[in-house]
Amino acid sequence: MPILPKGNQVYAADLVSIREAQIRINPHIHKTPLLSSQTLNNLSGRNLFFKAECFQKGASFKFRGACNSILSLNDRQVGNGVVTHSSGNHAGAVALAAKMRGIPSYIVIPENAPECKVKNVKRYGGQVIFSQSTMLSREHTANKVHQETGAVFIHPYNDKHVISGQGTVGLELLEQVPELDAIVIPISGGGLISGITLAVKSINPSIQVFAAEPEGANDAALSKAKGEIVKLDEINTIADGLRASLGDLTWPVVRDLVDDIITVNELEIINAMKLCYEILKVVVEPSAAVGLAAVLSEKFKCNASTNSTKNVGIILTGGNVDLSVLWDSINK
Amino acid sequence: MPILPKGNQVYAADLVSIREAQIRINPHIHKTPLLSSQTLNNLSGRNLFFKAECFQKGASFKFRGACNSILSLNDRQVGNGVVTHSSGNHAGAVALAAKMRGIPSYIVIPENAPECKVKNVKRYGGQVIFSQSTMLSREHTANKVHQETGAVFIHPYNDKHVISGQGTVGLELLEQVPELDAIVIPISGGGLISGITLAVKSINPSIQVFAAEPEGANDAALSKAKGEIVKLDEINTIADGLRASLGDLTWPVVRDLVDDIITVNELEIINAMKLCYEILKVVVEPSAAVGLAAVLSEKFKCNASTNSTKNVGIILTGGNVDLSVLWDSINK
Repeated sequence: MPILPKGNQVYAADLVSIREAQIRINPHIHKTPLLSSQTLNNLSGRNLFFKAECFQKGASFKFRGACNSILSLNDRQVGNGVVTHSSGNHAGAVALAAKMRGIPSYIVIPENAPECKVKNVKRYGGQVIFSQSTMLSREHTANKVHQETGAVFIHPYNDKHVISGQGTVGLELLEQVPELDAIVIPISGGGLISGITLAVKSINPSIQVFAAEPEGANDAALSKAKGEIVKLDEINTIADGLRASLGDLTWPVVRDLVDDIITVNELEIINAMKLCYEILKVVVEPSAAVGLAAVLSEKFKCNASTNSTKNVGIILTGGNVDLSVLWDSINK
Repeated sequence: MPILPKGNQVYAADLVSIREAQIRINPHIHKTPLLSSQTLNNLSGRNLFFKAECFQKGASFKFRGACNSILSLNDRQVGNGVVTHSSGNHAGAVALAAKMRGIPSYIVIPENAPECKVKNVKRYGGQVIFSQSTMLSREHTANKVHQETGAVFIHPYNDKHVISGQGTVGLELLEQVPELDAIVIPISGGGLISGITLAVKSINPSIQVFAAEPEGANDAALSKAKGEIVKLDEINTIADGLRASLGDLTWPVVRDLVDDIITVNELEIINAMKLCYEILKVVVEPSAAVGLAAVLSEKFKCNASTNSTKNVGIILTGGNVDLSVLWDSINK
């Protein structure tokens, strides 16, 4: 049963493009496992199914979109390589997908990006070009590289191939847990949640989709409340992967099809991160714990629409985090 | 094709008892996922398949053996509960399996045991009884509890039901990677390696089994070299789960059927642990990284018998580790 767009809205991806993406990228990605824990089920009062995209190649779901995007281009188009700007997981994902295809990648990284994410890009053979930390400087630098090299720009989320690639997380999750009632997904630029929502609601429109967002980067919640894209002047959260704003391709899906946006504070994020390490035994970056934080929040528990929500999927989005404090303590 | 015991040797478990264990415990355990990484394949020059028992209930493979042991007892036998002594994962595993069966558990823990492992026992409802850290004090205290309560003693490894339970790791691994050439398994008391060896060599005698052991607790390597059980006066390793000595039920399997024992130093263990966190994105305790440390060691790479060993299974045995230094650094 296809999703009926509201009014004349046509979304950037659909079940067909997401299934095509799945066929295209399946030989190259990891089918990530589901994890579960009775302790966390008891804590939340639901059955939680954690989709561990931190075990994806490049350690985040971003590889799916980058891979689909780069494999969708023909040999002539990618002859000069690809370029992107990213402070995070998209950077490593593009470098890895480009390496796989045997083409050069130019990755513009703001000078304040976490060291571990820069290291990933280098490990995968990407050429790192530093910019200032403002979005203007990032875009300007990437554009300059594009003009100088002819490399194709791969947007981190506002791109139909990227959205379709991320949507494959939803297809896999539904194969693994067909009886799913809801999915909770950290939101930033909206590529992941758009793709998953278009995938799962096309297959089963009754599945609820909730976005999870840090209070200190709550532009998606404000956008949804106001009915138009809101951008924040200041962003303040430990979740370094959730700092982007919605794009014109992701916003319509969030506006029309995402059921609600749950915001969580920094303490809730850190507590959820701790549970991921101590109970689930997975290494997640702070952004990846925001979904669990939302499910454990009073807001989610008291949300009337979740009264009969029993089986909940949570996307653990990525695992790139600097753990040097741990190794320093062992080497002492 | 059954294993032919050397001489008149009868081993503590066999394919039949291990398959029975699998049927008995399957409804209660997690079928743990396999993880893999191109980066680690490149580093080792092999295809590595990580069996992530850190995602098992209680966060270690020990739940399999404890579960099989406790479910093998009849209602009359377990009427007074179970007792064990352990400084580690067997403690939590017995408490959890007893809770599942609805019987009391008495867990004797040496006063120097890691806090996170004591916490697990309490979380699962086990009654903690502290002893001094010597094996004599542990055994004496457990025996006293047994006499006072009538609780059945569950040995951590020198027990046929425990060995059969741990052997189910081998059955699962072979289902997941039928083309396996070798398995590398951290060794302590020998319960895990005995069970896995008896399982996989019964199905495919050409599979190599290697034990991995810290140099600072190399009693199994010394035993194998000497042809009899050697106990160490002093043990010195970060791998707190690998401090036990072989038992009379596990030793014959190690002596006759384990192909070789690879020892690794502390730096190799810490480096492998770092790779587990940073590349595989799994939370492992130091003992669980010893298998990877062995595979990456020169000793393994230069071992003539591994020349054509391509597909290697590695058991990530457990994930109970104190990460408070990480949370302290975030809360600063």
